[in-house]
Amino acid sequence: MNKFGLFTKFTTHEGQLESLVQMLLEAANGMEAIDSCDIYVVNISDSDPNCVWVTEIWSDPLAHQASLALEETKVLVQKARPLIAGIEQIKLNPLGGKGI
Amino acid sequence: MNKFGLFTKFTTHEGQLESLVQMLLEAANGMEAIDSCDIYVVNISDSDPNCVWVTEIWSDPLAHQASLALEETKVLVQKARPLIAGIEQIKLNPLGGKGI
Repeated sequence: MNKFGLFTKFTTHEGQLESLVQMLLEAANGMEAIDSCDIYVVNISDSDPNCVWVTEIWSDPLAHQASLALEETKVLVQKARPLIAGIEQIKLNPLGGKGI
Repeated sequence: MNKFGLFTKFTTHEGQLESLVQMLLEAANGMEAIDSCDIYVVNISDSDPNCVWVTEIWSDPLAHQASLALEETKVLVQKARPLIAGIEQIKLNPLGGKGI
């Protein structure tokens, strides 16, 4: 298995959480058409009310790279940037399990 | 959507990573029979070679609670405990996306 996983924590500027969530859910919607994307889930957490987490799993690292080059992705990044105060990412090697 | 997400980082004692990975992959295998479990993926990362991450998404918080009460889960926890130096968890509210 050579899948690629990414866990991203976005910290938003005060009052911008809902806008970022909507943008990321739109992005998730676009993933339905991309076969190489297994999982793209948008999450929030009660314990950290200014943060959004995105869990992604791709068929391979190159498929993820290719998604970053899409015009839709570039537009999203540009729209989202003013809402975001910080980003932390963990790159993962998914070994197996249910849902991939 | 009232799904329940859990992101768990296990830090293993030196030399115990592979054993814990095998146990968690067995647990993941058991999830195939549990309809209320959408996602249970076992991951490692090059950047943190003593750690295993598990990404879980359940149909609701109670389904996850019920899984903890299963005999198989209790046996796994008992077998895995000596391998584990630390556990960090983030509880998530999945809002939507691909794969759930």
